[in-house]
Amino acid sequence: MHTPYSIDKSSIDKNDVILTGDRATGRLHLGHYSGSLSQRLALQGQCAQTILVADMQGLTDNGHQPGHVATHILGLVADYLAVGLDPDKVTICQQSQLPALAELTMFYSNLVSYTRLVRNPTVKHEINDKQFGQQVPVGFLTYPISQAADITAFGANLVPVGDDQLPMIEQTNDIVRKFNHVVGEPVLRECRALTSKASRLPGVDGKSKMSNSLGNAIYLSDDNDTIRDAVRSMYTDPQHLRVSDPGRVEGNVVFTYLDAFHPDAQHVAELKAHYQRGGLGDMTVKNVLTDSLVSLISPIRERRKALMNAPDHLLDVLKDGQQKASIQTNQTCQNVKRSLGLLVG
Amino acid sequence: MHTPYSIDKSSIDKNDVILTGDRATGRLHLGHYSGSLSQRLALQGQCAQTILVADMQGLTDNGHQPGHVATHILGLVADYLAVGLDPDKVTICQQSQLPALAELTMFYSNLVSYTRLVRNPTVKHEINDKQFGQQVPVGFLTYPISQAADITAFGANLVPVGDDQLPMIEQTNDIVRKFNHVVGEPVLRECRALTSKASRLPGVDGKSKMSNSLGNAIYLSDDNDTIRDAVRSMYTDPQHLRVSDPGRVEGNVVFTYLDAFHPDAQHVAELKAHYQRGGLGDMTVKNVLTDSLVSLISPIRERRKALMNAPDHLLDVLKDGQQKASIQTNQTCQNVKRSLGLLVG
Repeated sequence: MHTPYSIDKSSIDKNDVILTGDRATGRLHLGHYSGSLSQRLALQGQCAQTILVADMQGLTDNGHQPGHVATHILGLVADYLAVGLDPDKVTICQQSQLPALAELTMFYSNLVSYTRLVRNPTVKHEINDKQFGQQVPVGFLTYPISQAADITAFGANLVPVGDDQLPMIEQTNDIVRKFNHVVGEPVLRECRALTSKASRLPGVDGKSKMSNSLGNAIYLSDDNDTIRDAVRSMYTDPQHLRVSDPGRVEGNVVFTYLDAFHPDAQHVAELKAHYQRGGLGDMTVKNVLTDSLVSLISPIRERRKALMNAPDHLLDVLKDGQQKASIQTNQTCQNVKRSLGLLVG
Repeated sequence: MHTPYSIDKSSIDKNDVILTGDRATGRLHLGHYSGSLSQRLALQGQCAQTILVADMQGLTDNGHQPGHVATHILGLVADYLAVGLDPDKVTICQQSQLPALAELTMFYSNLVSYTRLVRNPTVKHEINDKQFGQQVPVGFLTYPISQAADITAFGANLVPVGDDQLPMIEQTNDIVRKFNHVVGEPVLRECRALTSKASRLPGVDGKSKMSNSLGNAIYLSDDNDTIRDAVRSMYTDPQHLRVSDPGRVEGNVVFTYLDAFHPDAQHVAELKAHYQRGGLGDMTVKNVLTDSLVSLISPIRERRKALMNAPDHLLDVLKDGQQKASIQTNQTCQNVKRSLGLLVG
């Protein structure tokens, strides 16, 4: 399998603990693949890694339509396995099945002021984006606290995030330091962001981000016709009207995707040169990209389909993951309760 | 034992479920005794009743000093048993040992908007009282959601509250109705306030409320000298300067307490008449009250002391309570998760 993501593995230590995850609000797409999924694959087996199917977080802005979260839980697990994540090397578990995460959220809520919470630029930005205004659900407003619970519950010290998520790491470490200070012992572990140098994959429409809500995604579960149609609709160079015209490759989504997903960089370089000097039609390049994406996605899609058709294996993966994760998260929660003096028994 | 509280027991049905509790932030005092404790005693055995040692809620405004909560957990249980609450008839349990309460809080947080939360007059008032301003801890701001979780987790339909707490019941029912509507089935039970006709016991200083934080309380664990000193300092009639003067009994805390705690109403009526016509000194009446309070409190205090000296029984009570309460609250939480579609297994 082609994994475009590269990471300096020498910087990863076997004592490192990584927490990642996805909101259970949609299928995974090429944006996830070129970013977080490839990173998880590259780190798989290097150190402890937990992948959270974040159904609780998915509900924070879907409280009125919980079915929108429920329908995506197993699909996420299927996406993970289909791209090659191995449950023997990473722990895959469902957030709502780990009560300790909710308990820790409650404890940490007492250490964060309302002012500090709404100062968080990521949350501010998202509240604006979703046009919640004052109607923002409390669960959504407070999700950075819940994320701090997720991270600390697993003792994670490395959290792969985009630049826009750095305030979440800062909020987590604020809580960690405050908690350890209050109880007078280092119960919780600080974490740091594991940022990626890979640039974010644009949507097929050329917008900066591939996203469910923008409707500009190609999914790992898409069939070949859907992939072909998506590539056909892709944003190229609007000035490139005739085949003989010289074309631009910068900001041309087709070439961005070829860079990200075509296995032969040399061939892509030749195509770029040809396109730039003129004589290479959009349709021809798009066909190359379609072939490349179809050969990347179709085995993933077929594995995913097989997994979804016999979901017992997915359920077993979640069950095993829950078992492992319960032990870890309950232990952290017990440590927290003990240090607060709540274990009177 | 003298239980001043009277309730129309015919209004209680065996299908009723009562939830009460106390923040684990102090010892219980005569204000608790004449109000909530007497009511619990009167209702004991009439229907299901759970008493929550609310350590999580105690932490919402004591996040920086968790020890202030931890030290009061066992004392509350001792207070309960010492006044005659019977663990065979009521379930006594510790809030932090019931993860389902935290989980439900998270789910409900997604159904309450920030605006709705801060519109709650009880919360508004308390934030002012505690002079939190914008520094209010998120856990304190959101505690009405946590209370809704407590109430619904036990399927409680009757919640004994003071008039100032009625907005909490309203908030809970808002959540219940919204949740049931979203999932399309009556998973959660609505509740109503069980308000007391008994007027609230003033503090020894004549202020409207006996309270830990006001320092005007007589505790169920106070020794006789402390009781005597407290009664001696009690607010009477500031115009009643000489024994021969006629005195006022209205607003005279000594008589308010005699009404509440002296076992012989006839004798209290005679004392009042004598005081009003003149010739009865404050000291004499205070001695009557002291004797009365000493005979009420000293057996409670001694039972409490014995329980605290050999806390194994208290721990067993909490353990048994936790076991019973876990089954109930986990069941509610499973119903909630099932109805949200989160139980994929």
